[in-house]
Amino acid sequence: MGLLVVSCVDGPGIVSKITTFLHRRAANIVQSDQYSTGPRGGRFFLRIVFHLPGLATELAGLERGFGEEVAGPLRADFQLRDASVPIRVALFASRYDHCLLDLLWRTRRGELPIEVVQVVSNHADLASDVAAFGVPFEHIPMSQATKADAESRQLELLRGRVDLVVLARYMQILSGDFLNAVGVPVINIHHSFLPAFAGAGPYERAKERGVKLIGATAHYATEDLDEGPIIEQDVVRVSHRVTARELAQRGADIERTVLARAVAWHAEGRVLVNGRTTIIF
Amino acid sequence: MGLLVVSCVDGPGIVSKITTFLHRRAANIVQSDQYSTGPRGGRFFLRIVFHLPGLATELAGLERGFGEEVAGPLRADFQLRDASVPIRVALFASRYDHCLLDLLWRTRRGELPIEVVQVVSNHADLASDVAAFGVPFEHIPMSQATKADAESRQLELLRGRVDLVVLARYMQILSGDFLNAVGVPVINIHHSFLPAFAGAGPYERAKERGVKLIGATAHYATEDLDEGPIIEQDVVRVSHRVTARELAQRGADIERTVLARAVAWHAEGRVLVNGRTTIIF
Amino acid sequence: MGLLVVSCVDGPGIVSKITTFLHRRAANIVQSDQYSTGPRGGRFFLRIVFHLPGLATELAGLERGFGEEVAGPLRADFQLRDASVPIRVALFASRYDHCLLDLLWRTRRGELPIEVVQVVSNHADLASDVAAFGVPFEHIPMSQATKADAESRQLELLRGRVDLVVLARYMQILSGDFLNAVGVPVINIHHSFLPAFAGAGPYERAKERGVKLIGATAHYATEDLDEGPIIEQDVVRVSHRVTARELAQRGADIERTVLARAVAWHAEGRVLVNGRTTIIF
Amino acid sequence: MGLLVVSCVDGPGIVSKITTFLHRRAANIVQSDQYSTGPRGGRFFLRIVFHLPGLATELAGLERGFGEEVAGPLRADFQLRDASVPIRVALFASRYDHCLLDLLWRTRRGELPIEVVQVVSNHADLASDVAAFGVPFEHIPMSQATKADAESRQLELLRGRVDLVVLARYMQILSGDFLNAVGVPVINIHHSFLPAFAGAGPYERAKERGVKLIGATAHYATEDLDEGPIIEQDVVRVSHRVTARELAQRGADIERTVLARAVAWHAEGRVLVNGRTTIIF
Repeated sequence: MGLLVVSCVDGPGIVSKITTFLHRRAANIVQSDQYSTGPRGGRFFLRIVFHLPGLATELAGLERGFGEEVAGPLRADFQLRDASVPIRVALFASRYDHCLLDLLWRTRRGELPIEVVQVVSNHADLASDVAAFGVPFEHIPMSQATKADAESRQLELLRGRVDLVVLARYMQILSGDFLNAVGVPVINIHHSFLPAFAGAGPYERAKERGVKLIGATAHYATEDLDEGPIIEQDVVRVSHRVTARELAQRGADIERTVLARAVAWHAEGRVLVNGRTTIIF
Repeated sequence: MGLLVVSCVDGPGIVSKITTFLHRRAANIVQSDQYSTGPRGGRFFLRIVFHLPGLATELAGLERGFGEEVAGPLRADFQLRDASVPIRVALFASRYDHCLLDLLWRTRRGELPIEVVQVVSNHADLASDVAAFGVPFEHIPMSQATKADAESRQLELLRGRVDLVVLARYMQILSGDFLNAVGVPVINIHHSFLPAFAGAGPYERAKERGVKLIGATAHYATEDLDEGPIIEQDVVRVSHRVTARELAQRGADIERTVLARAVAWHAEGRVLVNGRTTIIF
Repeated sequence: MGLLVVSCVDGPGIVSKITTFLHRRAANIVQSDQYSTGPRGGRFFLRIVFHLPGLATELAGLERGFGEEVAGPLRADFQLRDASVPIRVALFASRYDHCLLDLLWRTRRGELPIEVVQVVSNHADLASDVAAFGVPFEHIPMSQATKADAESRQLELLRGRVDLVVLARYMQILSGDFLNAVGVPVINIHHSFLPAFAGAGPYERAKERGVKLIGATAHYATEDLDEGPIIEQDVVRVSHRVTARELAQRGADIERTVLARAVAWHAEGRVLVNGRTTIIF
Repeated sequence: MGLLVVSCVDGPGIVSKITTFLHRRAANIVQSDQYSTGPRGGRFFLRIVFHLPGLATELAGLERGFGEEVAGPLRADFQLRDASVPIRVALFASRYDHCLLDLLWRTRRGELPIEVVQVVSNHADLASDVAAFGVPFEHIPMSQATKADAESRQLELLRGRVDLVVLARYMQILSGDFLNAVGVPVINIHHSFLPAFAGAGPYERAKERGVKLIGATAHYATEDLDEGPIIEQDVVRVSHRVTARELAQRGADIERTVLARAVAWHAEGRVLVNGRTTIIF
């Protein structure tokens, strides 16, 4: 199956132009989603899955043609790829294993259209767990003093090898320089609560405050770390009987589920960024 | 805003034909959703919201043109209407007030794009509640012996006046004759549980079985009453402390919320029937 | 049924003392819940529902006896009352009707063990809706200049007549003086989001940020308005297709449900305050 | 910490007798939950967590004393044990790994107060995954013809070694003879839907029917396989876009979470069986 994702300033006739192009190239649309933020001056978003015999050989020509005939005149951003080719992912972790293992399990089981090409960690703890999946593990220690060097090593390790970085409870803040240089989207998972608790010891503070729901938010990382576009959120119910330690365990359950959904949707081209928000098809 | 809903056998170029038609008529697509059940021989579903200056006067011509130029050749079912005109609804109720009042409240508040033109009940209990909303209330008693006559009176009362019938906890089974004759969709709300309990006293039986979730299902009524296409479902968590009476209250909460969503989505043209299932856009 | 709620510093033998007292007075415990925040120096919380023939006449003596024989020596806070006597409630509202109508309707249906003795509003809009339930409605306008006077009128109106005040989307901030003077608990309902948005226009800001869940929190009001002990929270899922106006409607659904649960649990003696948190039995 | 679980016919003074016994033995109650199915002739359920210095050495005497002084006269069922000693569990699996791996991983993390002493499978597929956790894996193939022999081998393998059997998506039906002979509770996980689908291919049939929620139920296994007392249930939302294969993946997510909660609660003594229902403390 082919996957086409397009966004541009909205205006009349865009869908017609795009679908006419595909029709002429003998592509059959299997699924399409479209959304616009408003009839005039809004932004247009489209995701199309199509069937085209011989896609693998046609892809480069199709992409060039779409760029010249459609995307160029519309000044549109687009991505056109073979949905059967998994995207290449690097997972960043520290000591917590729940998000990392869950993504590796799901990948092995064929649930996620991704290939994990590298795990990077600032601790060595999870090396043997990762080895069991046959995935390269790189231990790059990091301290305040060595952060710039460590990030350079990370960038060197990943250069040209990945389409996505996933922070699977990576307990370091990536610098703005890293985010600019890495050149691919970065997905982060963040605990979140009603009401929200920023800062250290969130589960302890949620316990002190007596919250009845705890949650998690998966979002694209930006320099303003927890303010990037939200991809997915969910919550789980807790009671006063739940200790701060159990809160963290329930939190871990919801973190790994929310992160897995976000990674799956991103890999399937279902997440379109619109400024500070996302369209999820 | 104009609303266009289309379904037909899938094939190449359908979206292109439809959007080209709208483009030529100067309609600007604001929102569109498309789904197909498979690339070959599957079924195609489309919902488009469009902006067209002077829609009210253009509508009849647009509908005729779409039928001749697009829907006819595609052998497609379609609906083309002015989304700003509320659909006309009859509510059927018995003695329970929770679904009926909730729909009347929401309509008054402007949450539902419907106009409630008639309430029909086989009991007189809710007459004054309905009167407070300025909606006609018709008490049509019903017994096994009088069922056919009562249904005839119902049909006469509604003829040509409604686009939708909603069974808001109406405790009578509509005959197949009624469903055929009424000529508009009928939405029903049904308690449902994990595992399911058919038959009488469902909340008592759920209590005996110790279920931890109770739920509700809104669906289109068919002759096989609780087997029509599902529109929406939801559940609420219960514990062993909840009595059968409280189970019924929690059930009522979830019934009214699920039914309200189903009615809203139907009225907005978001529910497309596909055999025994529904596509919800 | 009798209802006994106790809290005190934890220590050995407390449950034994309390249940022995009830046993000697021929009370049969039907349901009990106990919780302690820790074995040493923690705080102990107990709720007991008991059956005692002739409770209405025995109550005063039972209360005195419990105070002298049990609560006094334990330095315990306690409440002992007849659970079949509804608590007296004042509802404060402004222009939004969803929380107010829902509480009035649930009370009429017998779902809430409360008697609504007064509705107070700073607007006249909801007067006739309230009148339909046969509940006194008092319109007390309020401006920055008249706030102190208006609060005095409110206090005068409620003095000695209520056991609980519920802010059913009352869009004024109660002064610390009012909260001190009113002498009964005050329950508030607050929109809440992941991540949280304080301040004006929360649904607009949630829309801008692209949140996937919106929620509501019911809590006891304190001077620091939205920081009082949390009683209940819930969320509902939303998508990018939902407009800010629809977000507010979905928010209203969750607000009324969460508030109704909080009021029911408070009225049933199920909510025990522990500093900034609550124990919910 | 000590754990005491009691159930008996309800009547006056039971809590007093039990807590007085613990008080005299210098046990300090840390947490207690009590529930009764009715004031007269109902059934009484109690769970108490207590602190007692030197519990390990006192336990046998405490148990004997409780049996003679309290449980005997009350004709009560009871369990008194050291909550810090994990219960011994055998996991039964077939080819699906999601429930099995999740329980092994949670056990390793210290989230579940259990020790997995044996994995039994009718297929060899998961042998190396289990080996990575250092848990014995026994492959006992099973066909219609060999079922009785295979069950005998299973029983022999487990005799005296386990306190609980967990069917972690074990795709064989245990015979009534096995259930009688095994002598410990057996927990099963079952997909469940609104409405329910019994029989083969449940996810395919849920897809055909267009359900909007899929779920899972953890319950004690009885001869009538899916009719045993329910421990926990949960659901996840799905849309028409989800294929039958993805439905099964979402189902797997909810199955593993629900099963893990049921195992944790059972191991913590929080699940009390009452005929066909359960009390969850």
